[in-house]
Amino acid sequence: MSVTRLFVETDLSSGVEAPLGEDQAHYLRHVMRRADGAPLSLFNGRDGEWKATLSLRGKKAAVALVAERTREQASEPDLWLCFAPVKRARIDYIAEKATELGVSVLQPVVTQHTIVERVNVERLRANAVEAAEQTERLSVPEVRQPVDLTRLLGAWPTGRHLLMCDETGSGPPIAEVLAGLDDAARAAPWAIVVGPEGGFAETELSLLRRIKDVTAVGLGPRILRADTAALAALAVWQALVGDWRRPTPRLAADYRTSKDTV
Amino acid sequence: MSVTRLFVETDLSSGVEAPLGEDQAHYLRHVMRRADGAPLSLFNGRDGEWKATLSLRGKKAAVALVAERTREQASEPDLWLCFAPVKRARIDYIAEKATELGVSVLQPVVTQHTIVERVNVERLRANAVEAAEQTERLSVPEVRQPVDLTRLLGAWPTGRHLLMCDETGSGPPIAEVLAGLDDAARAAPWAIVVGPEGGFAETELSLLRRIKDVTAVGLGPRILRADTAALAALAVWQALVGDWRRPTPRLAADYRTSKDTV
Repeated sequence: MSVTRLFVETDLSSGVEAPLGEDQAHYLRHVMRRADGAPLSLFNGRDGEWKATLSLRGKKAAVALVAERTREQASEPDLWLCFAPVKRARIDYIAEKATELGVSVLQPVVTQHTIVERVNVERLRANAVEAAEQTERLSVPEVRQPVDLTRLLGAWPTGRHLLMCDETGSGPPIAEVLAGLDDAARAAPWAIVVGPEGGFAETELSLLRRIKDVTAVGLGPRILRADTAALAALAVWQALVGDWRRPTPRLAADYRTSKDTV
Repeated sequence: MSVTRLFVETDLSSGVEAPLGEDQAHYLRHVMRRADGAPLSLFNGRDGEWKATLSLRGKKAAVALVAERTREQASEPDLWLCFAPVKRARIDYIAEKATELGVSVLQPVVTQHTIVERVNVERLRANAVEAAEQTERLSVPEVRQPVDLTRLLGAWPTGRHLLMCDETGSGPPIAEVLAGLDDAARAAPWAIVVGPEGGFAETELSLLRRIKDVTAVGLGPRILRADTAALAALAVWQALVGDWRRPTPRLAADYRTSKDTV
């Protein structure tokens, strides 16, 4: 039986009883049909990953009995993804893929040419949690409320580098820019900003250019959809600047969980 | 009014009448509600991009009257994506995103641990055509019939380099491998091979290792789903080896077409 991996909010340590949410209890009882004592794997983004067992309580509830730690919490790159909301299936996909690709913050931004303005932050967060659970990530990115680009840039944190992908503009090749960074830039916090399908407005471009550590880059001769541009930029950033530069650890087979392959 | 961009099979030159398919005629007449004389943009993967106008014929049919060429056909990287089929939504996504990311061939491969075996090649091709139409690409990748990995490797073309992404294994970082290629390797044809969620079988791994120009690479410390691994590897390959190394051209505003932003 595969081990079900779950994100929980509670502190994790040996011997504690971690409460499981209603949805988690329902999922374990009725979707996965797990019985009392079924093996679980828990993480909360702070305390690493823990072996646990399922304990059913009453007709609906469930808790996890935490045993021993199986992985230490590791530091992850401080990388924001700032993206203009797109229609439902594509925004779900951005949340899922960006989580797999290791972003620390998902920040929807409303631009002058943004067409979709309502963003279901709770649904984005659920997608991020599911992606983290299924892909062995030890944390879940923070999903922020949408903010106007103007306002975001007006309060831009000092020292956070900004990689700007504007599919309507031109820019030096992304690999040339990222491979040429000095050590200080590599160690800095970063954000990738992807424009809406219609591109940034002129006033937005001039605000972007005023950020101290901003670099516009190009993603090749084909025009990418906004979601593709976001994921492509994240992958290239991780490969050249982020934690993909380290050799990949091989996981112990015991702690590989099932994935939704069918 | 935005210009509708369509892929056609027919040869394109000034003055010819390009027949439009039933689906294309229906789309233009009833979805886009285009009238006689509406502006079109056509490409066929060989003759560049052409301005054309719509000519309605009878109650259902339509043709395009081809005027002048607006873009020359450009050469594209010779890059195959060989991927184990995954469930429907994810395989559609692979076809769409891989097209945007510039693959020349989409090759579904059946491995010992592949769970989904039926592949709707026609639907994959429709996804690839739509992605090419909507993202200014001048060609559509060839979508091949699924083939057993063993058979594919047994007839592996001499000189085609193979980048192997195996999420269950370890490997040197992808950027380190690709940045270190010599000029001959950069000029060679390539294929990216992504394993199924369950990983390659031992016999498959040993067949893969027998390919002359094979390199296994790692995609960081998080485990990626097969579709994410495919798109991430494509993006990094294009950035470091492919045509993203050239500066991005800025398109004339006239020939930017509408995209599905809502």
